[in-house]
Amino acid sequence: MNLDLIRRLSVPAETRIVLCVLDGLGGLPGPRGRTELDEADTQHLDRLAEAGALGQTIPAGPGITVGSGPGHTALFGLDPFEFDIGRGVLEATGIDFELGPNDLAARGNLCTVGGDGNITDRRAGRVATEVTAEIAAQLGRIELPGVEVFVEAVRDHRFVLVLRGDGLSAALSETDPQREGVPPLAAEALDAVASRTAVLVNSFVEQARTMIEGREQANHLTLRGWSVRPELPQLPELWKLRAAACTVYPMYRGLARLAGMEAVDGGDSLETQFAALERHWDDYDFFFVHYKATDTAGEDGDFARKVQAIRDFDQELPQLLALEPDVLVITGDHSSPATMAAHSWHPVPLLMHGATVRPDGARRFTELDCATGGLGTIPATEVLPVAFAHGGRLAKFGA
Amino acid sequence: MNLDLIRRLSVPAETRIVLCVLDGLGGLPGPRGRTELDEADTQHLDRLAEAGALGQTIPAGPGITVGSGPGHTALFGLDPFEFDIGRGVLEATGIDFELGPNDLAARGNLCTVGGDGNITDRRAGRVATEVTAEIAAQLGRIELPGVEVFVEAVRDHRFVLVLRGDGLSAALSETDPQREGVPPLAAEALDAVASRTAVLVNSFVEQARTMIEGREQANHLTLRGWSVRPELPQLPELWKLRAAACTVYPMYRGLARLAGMEAVDGGDSLETQFAALERHWDDYDFFFVHYKATDTAGEDGDFARKVQAIRDFDQELPQLLALEPDVLVITGDHSSPATMAAHSWHPVPLLMHGATVRPDGARRFTELDCATGGLGTIPATEVLPVAFAHGGRLAKFGA
Repeated sequence: MNLDLIRRLSVPAETRIVLCVLDGLGGLPGPRGRTELDEADTQHLDRLAEAGALGQTIPAGPGITVGSGPGHTALFGLDPFEFDIGRGVLEATGIDFELGPNDLAARGNLCTVGGDGNITDRRAGRVATEVTAEIAAQLGRIELPGVEVFVEAVRDHRFVLVLRGDGLSAALSETDPQREGVPPLAAEALDAVASRTAVLVNSFVEQARTMIEGREQANHLTLRGWSVRPELPQLPELWKLRAAACTVYPMYRGLARLAGMEAVDGGDSLETQFAALERHWDDYDFFFVHYKATDTAGEDGDFARKVQAIRDFDQELPQLLALEPDVLVITGDHSSPATMAAHSWHPVPLLMHGATVRPDGARRFTELDCATGGLGTIPATEVLPVAFAHGGRLAKFGA
Repeated sequence: MNLDLIRRLSVPAETRIVLCVLDGLGGLPGPRGRTELDEADTQHLDRLAEAGALGQTIPAGPGITVGSGPGHTALFGLDPFEFDIGRGVLEATGIDFELGPNDLAARGNLCTVGGDGNITDRRAGRVATEVTAEIAAQLGRIELPGVEVFVEAVRDHRFVLVLRGDGLSAALSETDPQREGVPPLAAEALDAVASRTAVLVNSFVEQARTMIEGREQANHLTLRGWSVRPELPQLPELWKLRAAACTVYPMYRGLARLAGMEAVDGGDSLETQFAALERHWDDYDFFFVHYKATDTAGEDGDFARKVQAIRDFDQELPQLLALEPDVLVITGDHSSPATMAAHSWHPVPLLMHGATVRPDGARRFTELDCATGGLGTIPATEVLPVAFAHGGRLAKFGA
């Protein structure tokens, strides 16, 4: 997507456009030779498929498996390679931590180490968020020369570390060894500029260890995803509209805010998310709704639960349809086939519904129907331009 | 399309290739849930679809609605953003006005203003071409310092203004306010270089007004689409062939000439156009045929008339088929669904027929069959390379 062209052709309109991202939506055939979407009872999605058009998206290129960051960046119409967002930044923004230009962020995990210093549990038994908050408050008092230190709990054992000061660098190795039975690693500078930052980080970790080593669990920590705030093109400026993000999980809210969306309180379920849309229906033109359960089940390798998660979404759809969005897009940020228990590179099902959508004869919302759908197989970055065209928000190019 | 690659690989051949552009071809379901193509009786097109292959084109990018200019530039294999053609240039070339390198062209409309100076009819009652020609002859006598003035009637109330001289700039605002009840605007310079041009243009308009203000209608004018002749890659040089344009409407002939095609007299109907192809069959390798009626009906929102226009084209097809073109391409420059009464961004149906076309099992020439056709969904710029490949006009790349 050529962003200058978007700026030139985008026009305001009265239409409401909703992008529902079912995280990790695409699947693979399970035990009965049918995918999660094949198996799920999706009467409302199927009705939308019949009246609308299907297709599939390629998140970041053929064969490329994406994480949540690039998967969403692409869906927001931004090149995920040009606008690469670090995990630390995602986590910080997701808890509404306002990152400044001199901030270096990392995602932290509390972990448990044994007497030999080796990790026995990388997630510290998924310790309660409240406990993590207490520990974070303690760690936030750590002092480093010339640098402000912020430590904020996220959820369970996860927290964010932000160092604020001049000359900090994200060119650091991660301290998470990604396995148990070994100790956390030291942070290493990946270039000369980063050597001072590495010293500061390792000093932080050493002070933190001393503070919490007496605990039975959650007595150590790992840090990864070193990153600074990226300068993303802003959706409201690009498209001349007001954009809202309505999510349950903080990371997706954070990502949306980086792209210029305003966060509206999504509560803790699709029901509360759709209710929030209704409350804010007149306040925004574009709504991003994120649904996590499909990905969680897929990553857990739980085929039946992913089928159920799709069905649950379908069951809640009438609440959204009652708002009569002018254009409704339902897709995923990537595939997460339960049989792989992981994100995958497979194309992602795409459904578009609205008055000016050209129907393509599809009968069901499945991978198979999507593969031959009228929207074609398109880069994920093209989803928003096509959706906004259907919403009357792109003027004609040339006479 | 990589033009250098084309220059390197294109080879002469004895084949005849015809590109028929049904302007605004693609549609949307109408009152009975079927598109214009679905509804039309298209026995000859359907037979071609069965023997050939279908696909769909994206004129200038996902979600982008194009005007006739970029729509055709893309079909001629040229990037419509890189080679952006102004409306003034299009109109001038369309009446065979040979634009020079120092020429600045604008599209003019005669309009009618009331006693208060406000526009009462932006099209001056679509005054007869002969009347416009008389007025144009009058206005052509206007004198401006250091600049030659040409005014030529186009059709109805439309005319072309060309100023010829050194240092003229197209960075001017349009004088057409695009609505009635207000006076024509003054031309304003959009940068410092253009300020002299703005003075000249406003002097022209003032002299013109004085000349024609006594008329009851067509007593004023508006100017837009300021542009200079673009340097387009020339089809004969790119492809090593002789190319002809056979159109009824001047604008499409003008566009084709900018891309290096020679205009052959198309007369006033498909019948005379196809007869012209027969007369010139030995003189050219490539023929561009433009058919306007589909777009006119689509833009007028007249579903039944668009169905009829498609049927009319189908009825005339045997005359073209009798020439036995080696490769026949039938497509549109953009979609113009009658239900939208406007150009749209929807993919455009594409049909290719010839001895080396790989059939794809399609049975009818409809949007639905095209969406799953064997040629795929491709940028419009790829149509000519694929057609010329089928015509044996692209050599192998690599050993």
